[in-house]
Amino acid sequence: MSEVKIIKDIKTIHNEIALLKKSGAITGFVPTMGFLHKGHTSLIEKSVKECDATVVSIFINPIQFGQAEDFNNYPRDTKRDYNIIRQTGAQYIFMPGESSMYGDNFKTTVSVKKLGKIMCGRYRPGHFDGVCTVVLKLFNIIGPDIAYFGQKDFQQLFIIKKMVEDLNININIKECPTVREEDGLAISSRNIYLSDIERENAPLLFKTLKAAAAMIKRKNTSIKKIKKTSLELLSGNCCIKSIDYFDFRNRSTLEEIKSLKNYFSREGRPGILIAAAIRMKSTRLIDNVVI
Amino acid sequence: MSEVKIIKDIKTIHNEIALLKKSGAITGFVPTMGFLHKGHTSLIEKSVKECDATVVSIFINPIQFGQAEDFNNYPRDTKRDYNIIRQTGAQYIFMPGESSMYGDNFKTTVSVKKLGKIMCGRYRPGHFDGVCTVVLKLFNIIGPDIAYFGQKDFQQLFIIKKMVEDLNININIKECPTVREEDGLAISSRNIYLSDIERENAPLLFKTLKAAAAMIKRKNTSIKKIKKTSLELLSGNCCIKSIDYFDFRNRSTLEEIKSLKNYFSREGRPGILIAAAIRMKSTRLIDNVVI
Repeated sequence: MSEVKIIKDIKTIHNEIALLKKSGAITGFVPTMGFLHKGHTSLIEKSVKECDATVVSIFINPIQFGQAEDFNNYPRDTKRDYNIIRQTGAQYIFMPGESSMYGDNFKTTVSVKKLGKIMCGRYRPGHFDGVCTVVLKLFNIIGPDIAYFGQKDFQQLFIIKKMVEDLNININIKECPTVREEDGLAISSRNIYLSDIERENAPLLFKTLKAAAAMIKRKNTSIKKIKKTSLELLSGNCCIKSIDYFDFRNRSTLEEIKSLKNYFSREGRPGILIAAAIRMKSTRLIDNVVI
Repeated sequence: MSEVKIIKDIKTIHNEIALLKKSGAITGFVPTMGFLHKGHTSLIEKSVKECDATVVSIFINPIQFGQAEDFNNYPRDTKRDYNIIRQTGAQYIFMPGESSMYGDNFKTTVSVKKLGKIMCGRYRPGHFDGVCTVVLKLFNIIGPDIAYFGQKDFQQLFIIKKMVEDLNININIKECPTVREEDGLAISSRNIYLSDIERENAPLLFKTLKAAAAMIKRKNTSIKKIKKTSLELLSGNCCIKSIDYFDFRNRSTLEEIKSLKNYFSREGRPGILIAAAIRMKSTRLIDNVVI
């Protein structure tokens, strides 16, 4: 187990990492909102393996939460996070205060148009602007060579990659596979909100996504039919209050796929993303599969 | 006269400057839209004096022009620009193509809220978003230590400084005084549009701003009266078609100043910006004075 430096000050972490980079060290970065789980540690471990130094940030970003969302109740446990990070071999924890990230007079927004309004963006207006803005700030503060993001938040990952491309940000974005519980539930900090009965029923989301993928692979059906079957499966469950979306999209563009025709007619077809968000009484769950 | 390298490729300039910086060189950057004049050369010469290497970019940024504006007619003369830059001692000209800056699928916008909607922003919707987005791109491509901007575009400079602060961009922004013709007209690439009679009358803008400043200094009057006098002076001129704005603002916040009371009641009062935009038949002129 290595020593971990906890740094709260923006200038201090910036100068420390700049010095490291000057000496030739490759720096990896894993931005988190804390309350770390196996999904996070898989990212951190990948960075530790691939980079000379790894920075994990812990910052619950207020501007990516809607007014009716769970910013105030978002789970926090810094001691636990510290112990988890220590075991990964990461060297730095960056934990800025809210007022140092957003002064009273903060005015700038980074926005990836269109992509931020579909899927989760339809149900969380402003969410992805908040994500892009804080991620760009963190990128500028840390200045990493590589940043690691999980595929569970596929849309977030996609939007960040687009922002990096559009703004000529010189950081390599690595996407890492979703980490799951044994029963298939995608691991998320928000799973802690689930009641026993909800937790028992939550794996249905991934099961339904997998079933939809299997139906596509069998080829003898349509998107419309697969979607109908999937929605029936989910809405019949006692714990699922509502379904925000269950979408079939081109994984390279996030454009909606209305027909499978073009996906089986020629070589080199783009992959399909099936992504969904459902609401249980206690929390909202998202997940996806890529074929 | 030194050699100037003209680089059109984004990766090439990025890697070249990154290498320079690794060797410890301080890099200065002057973003321009070309058709250089004494205002630009004053910025470039300052950078050459203060930095080990200076990059001048020439890029007429389409996304900062409105649909009815002069993007297509904006003056261009690359050979002339090249000769001017060569005489300043700058080492690099970065001249990217439009398609390499904005691919078909470009989607990201950087926006400094509120500040982009007042003054020139009211008359050029989207203009400052376009400016911020291209400036951030250029900053990321070049990665300079210092960037130089002129005070003639006071609002632009102010917004860029705010963006740099908000997004934790590690670049020192230096503001440089407006360069003027002998008769006081602020030098601008767009002055070339002026007809003889318009050119003759154009210095009235600066004269009126100076007169307003003098009235403030004399103290025995009100903003309302000074504004009325100034507007009368301008609107009585044969060449001035309309006045977009003639504003009195706190130079540290850009908040509008409605009364001079607080500006003479105590020590340490913030400076006052008087900024205006007028339209002649051939073009729009902006200028400002700071007290």
